[in-house]
Amino acid sequence: MFILGIDPGFAITGYGLVDYTGNKLRHVANGVINTRAGELFSSRLRTIDSELSEIIDKYDPDAMAIEELFFNNNAKTAIMAAHGRGVALLCCSKAGLPCYEYTPLQVKQNVVGYGRAEKKQVQHMVKVLLNLDNIPKPDDAADALAIAICHANSLLIAERI
Amino acid sequence: MFILGIDPGFAITGYGLVDYTGNKLRHVANGVINTRAGELFSSRLRTIDSELSEIIDKYDPDAMAIEELFFNNNAKTAIMAAHGRGVALLCCSKAGLPCYEYTPLQVKQNVVGYGRAEKKQVQHMVKVLLNLDNIPKPDDAADALAIAICHANSLLIAERI
Repeated sequence: MFILGIDPGFAITGYGLVDYTGNKLRHVANGVINTRAGELFSSRLRTIDSELSEIIDKYDPDAMAIEELFFNNNAKTAIMAAHGRGVALLCCSKAGLPCYEYTPLQVKQNVVGYGRAEKKQVQHMVKVLLNLDNIPKPDDAADALAIAICHANSLLIAERI
Repeated sequence: MFILGIDPGFAITGYGLVDYTGNKLRHVANGVINTRAGELFSSRLRTIDSELSEIIDKYDPDAMAIEELFFNNNAKTAIMAAHGRGVALLCCSKAGLPCYEYTPLQVKQNVVGYGRAEKKQVQHMVKVLLNLDNIPKPDDAADALAIAICHANSLLIAERI
């Protein structure tokens, strides 16, 4: 099955696709959707909607996994990101994708095995688990792959129970 | 011109339509879009999208005015509301409506003439300015009308300058 991981945002939305078949993980694609500072707020949301729709059309994923927003540091940034996250969820839901949500702690736990892992450790595990030559850039793309892997590992755990 | 005011939210999105023609304000419609607690997060966002699209189709407004989120009190609530606000902005933008954003202070200033006015004063002015028998219920519907009036008054001010 193809899993679309989303690292939600407003200026940058990360996406990462993995194929999880027969308990094996394979990298399919990753990247980011950038919206331009200075453009109308609503136009930036439309960019997220239209580019994410194109990605869904192109890869036809079976499920979407998205990170919950962490807002202890900067509420304003989290509120901006939540606008983009709402659009991303709507877009995937309209495409008929089941949407799974994970906290940053769950992503770290499922990818590294330790909920307080550093960001770099998570990115290193993305590289190792997907057999990549380098850590994908920018961070948002690597984080999106981590979220997709997190969902795959959740399915694996569910199968074992 | 028909102005669609939106009081953004996640559980409740208020909407209010006013006709602003020849420097006169007329009430057209008001109400709320409710999303059900217990439903999937993404399904609730789809409810906002589909019901708001129906309202736009029905009344064919010329512009949309939406309140900016105020987040000094509860960041979690504001983040939830921002998901719904993102969907509302996307929905209106896709319908080709120009989207205008106002802070709560601007709404109070434009409707009551005083930026620190109480909520009740704003609602009272909505009733008076639109020549209504009662203050619309729930509050979200009255607030949405206030936002629409705020935009109409902004246009009036712009015409006078």
